[in-house]
Amino acid sequence: MNGAESLARTLLACGVDTCFANPGTSEMHFVAALDRVPGIRCVLALFEGVATGAADGYARMAGKPAATLLHCGPGLANGLSNLHNASRGHVPIVNIVGDQATYHAPLDPPLAAETATWARPISTWLRTATQPQAVGEFAAEAVRAACTPPGGIATLILPSDASWSEGGVAQGPLRVPAPATLANATLDDVARILRSGEPAMLFLGGDALRAGPLADAHRIAAATGARLMAETFCVRMARGRGRFAIDRLPYNVEPGLATLAGIRHLILVGADDPVAFFAYPDMPGRFAPPDAKVTTLTRPGEDSAEALLRLAELLAAPQLAPPERRTPPPATGVITQANVGQTLAALLPENAVVVEEGVTFGFGLYAPMADAAPHDYLRLVGGAIGDGLPLSTGAAIGAPGRRVIGLQADGSALYTIQALWTQARERLDITTVILSNRRYAILDGELAAVGAAPGPASRALFDLGNPDMDWVHIANGFGVEAARAETMEAFADVFAHANSRPGPFLIELVIL
Amino acid sequence: MNGAESLARTLLACGVDTCFANPGTSEMHFVAALDRVPGIRCVLALFEGVATGAADGYARMAGKPAATLLHCGPGLANGLSNLHNASRGHVPIVNIVGDQATYHAPLDPPLAAETATWARPISTWLRTATQPQAVGEFAAEAVRAACTPPGGIATLILPSDASWSEGGVAQGPLRVPAPATLANATLDDVARILRSGEPAMLFLGGDALRAGPLADAHRIAAATGARLMAETFCVRMARGRGRFAIDRLPYNVEPGLATLAGIRHLILVGADDPVAFFAYPDMPGRFAPPDAKVTTLTRPGEDSAEALLRLAELLAAPQLAPPERRTPPPATGVITQANVGQTLAALLPENAVVVEEGVTFGFGLYAPMADAAPHDYLRLVGGAIGDGLPLSTGAAIGAPGRRVIGLQADGSALYTIQALWTQARERLDITTVILSNRRYAILDGELAAVGAAPGPASRALFDLGNPDMDWVHIANGFGVEAARAETMEAFADVFAHANSRPGPFLIELVIL
Repeated sequence: MNGAESLARTLLACGVDTCFANPGTSEMHFVAALDRVPGIRCVLALFEGVATGAADGYARMAGKPAATLLHCGPGLANGLSNLHNASRGHVPIVNIVGDQATYHAPLDPPLAAETATWARPISTWLRTATQPQAVGEFAAEAVRAACTPPGGIATLILPSDASWSEGGVAQGPLRVPAPATLANATLDDVARILRSGEPAMLFLGGDALRAGPLADAHRIAAATGARLMAETFCVRMARGRGRFAIDRLPYNVEPGLATLAGIRHLILVGADDPVAFFAYPDMPGRFAPPDAKVTTLTRPGEDSAEALLRLAELLAAPQLAPPERRTPPPATGVITQANVGQTLAALLPENAVVVEEGVTFGFGLYAPMADAAPHDYLRLVGGAIGDGLPLSTGAAIGAPGRRVIGLQADGSALYTIQALWTQARERLDITTVILSNRRYAILDGELAAVGAAPGPASRALFDLGNPDMDWVHIANGFGVEAARAETMEAFADVFAHANSRPGPFLIELVIL
Repeated sequence: MNGAESLARTLLACGVDTCFANPGTSEMHFVAALDRVPGIRCVLALFEGVATGAADGYARMAGKPAATLLHCGPGLANGLSNLHNASRGHVPIVNIVGDQATYHAPLDPPLAAETATWARPISTWLRTATQPQAVGEFAAEAVRAACTPPGGIATLILPSDASWSEGGVAQGPLRVPAPATLANATLDDVARILRSGEPAMLFLGGDALRAGPLADAHRIAAATGARLMAETFCVRMARGRGRFAIDRLPYNVEPGLATLAGIRHLILVGADDPVAFFAYPDMPGRFAPPDAKVTTLTRPGEDSAEALLRLAELLAAPQLAPPERRTPPPATGVITQANVGQTLAALLPENAVVVEEGVTFGFGLYAPMADAAPHDYLRLVGGAIGDGLPLSTGAAIGAPGRRVIGLQADGSALYTIQALWTQARERLDITTVILSNRRYAILDGELAAVGAAPGPASRALFDLGNPDMDWVHIANGFGVEAARAETMEAFADVFAHANSRPGPFLIELVIL
């Protein structure tokens, strides 16, 4: 068997059965191998950023990595920003990049590039298989590396001669290490802080935002008076009726500082010490008060669920029932964040997957959606916009049978708009709501923060109108049904309709 | 003045008056400075790959660099593949990347990335301005570096605190070195080879493909019997009636080898020794016969025009008149490469700029278009698909008053489809012809070359149908008028119509 076939067989043996791909010539032997080795679902993306973002969404829902298949350094480059996002969320991806033959690269053909240099910053594991004999071994290592807590991007670069040459050896799965268990001393320290009565906050991120750990965190808070706060951008949070809600740290610096003001103890649970997204003149970069003591219960990749459960038991915190929440009626009136959030809470399908890249308008949807039917809630975690449509695409494949609801800012959607076609091609059950304000509205605020009045450059650079995008045409062009909603009533009608039918649907919600 | 303002003033003083931008928070002070410093045209791109590709097209036509404005490492990453393309063509670009404040980056906020690591492979010059005092100086150096022959990408990374802090100093332009002049000994060597009567080929690339040097190359060929050949992918070639036509090296390996078979001397004129785009098992990587002697007349960045003129004079090669060419009638009948090329030759506007990223279908348009009205012909030079629509966008801004004709494969167009909106926003005179075969057709041939029959994976990954893109809807969605042509007659009608009106127009040419 050649190297390419050993790669396909090894991936399959290691449980990687989904591949988001945009292949080229140097990947042709792997494509031919995929034709011979049944069992890997190949999903075509029309742009590599769609492939990498979809692999992110898939892994968040499937709980295991997909493979990508990218074409040489420039194909990798096109996928880098969504790999950056996934790496920031510790999401496992087996990132396969075909490349020039080892002996051809020194001739420096036009598409030759520094593939490994570009891959290194976003990769927790990076190898180039220069021999067919190494391909299977490296592929099994890549799967293990991607899955090793806290998870990350394992990049396997595959020169075409390693792919086409005979000598491949398929490998079985390698044992993935379990998350580290917590030292009793750490638990005792945190329990002591929480019992001290000093103002304390449990700051939750990563796996601590699943339903079980959230419930235990609330037991701890109720028993000790500690406050709870979620990181601003979560990989996956359990939300909705029957679950415990949690506030999240605001994005902007001043409200973020205000949220943590007065805290004496910040206890990190699967989250990093929170910092501002950007620096601003004369503003602090960390959100925690300088004199607050930061204590780590669990780092990303440690078992936050077990830690919170053991902590709750150590504190003898009583069990709690989640608060009663009533389904609100769909909102009427003006299109506001609160009203849109209320309608989403009213009509969200049971067990939906919500992907939110709503940027400015999206911020206000979070609070009212606590009243929605139970759902998982996924956000862009790395700040590189253009993750939402690909995330939805991958999440739908990783969570079959569940409706995916994409709440999507218009400017960000345009980054990876090609994802719509993959949604149509794969007939994915996705409702995308474009929050269409026809501006990079977040930049209006940032310019004001600079103390500048809008002038010709900022007007040219922040305005997405002139001409306005026609989202129904764009979606239809990619094979996705679509409708425009200009009132809350129309939005409720079309949102319910979209969710009642199979396949993708796009709604342009016109925000004035 | 702050660092940002010194950047704007320095760029303008150095003749950089066009900026293709997709800014974010860390670039806000530069945007505010652009509002205060009139004279820089800011062109918004909805995706960074559009901005970088447009900067490429602009510089090819304007003969001077534009600036980009990109947001942090991930924004740069989104623009890398078209920067790769531009760097392969030695096209000058002043690549400005805003980044985290110097003191904030160590806190590792979500969008922090290894910006310089990602920029280095495509940059001929790379600096990070960590102090406002350095910004103006570095900006002037960046312009000089970008313009220094052969030209390249000068990347200036601008942390936001260097941008907002006072202490900026605007700089004037630095002297750009002229192309190196040729040693007489080199000319004598080449003349001796050409006089020897041994089979010789002048292999032309870069600036050697402008009208003047092409004419001199033909004088030399006529006087000595040397053959002429152009590199496969050219940055800019003068073509059409009243000019000397030149064959180009085929893309595929076997015809490429056949083209150079029997050559004893390969003389490089502004071009590199030609190599295969990809390696194939048991095929050579270089196109020249192993026993052919390779002699460099000029490297990229040396003055090929002067070298060819001096060589023609040294050889006492008589002046030649370009061949008579007649405008053909528009073709009728089946939609073939030859027929489409003929219709383009019949109807191409005078002095058009043709941007060709036609991939498989595009290969056959080259020969018949020699009969078109005089035009400049631009191609994707670095092999990273998705350059065509951005190139057209930038070329239209760099060559106002000239119609741009984009001959564009459908699969490649989808990479950077957002360029259509910038064409509409800026009301650019561009006719895009989508060569719509609804396949990655080039990969069909590559799979066959592997010796494999199409199976489920290759069928899923090469087919752009199911669903077919609706190009009229997509174009309209981005604010561009569009029409579909399914016959040669309809194509001729709509092509003539599109070119007769101002602003962008897209034609889907349906290829069966």
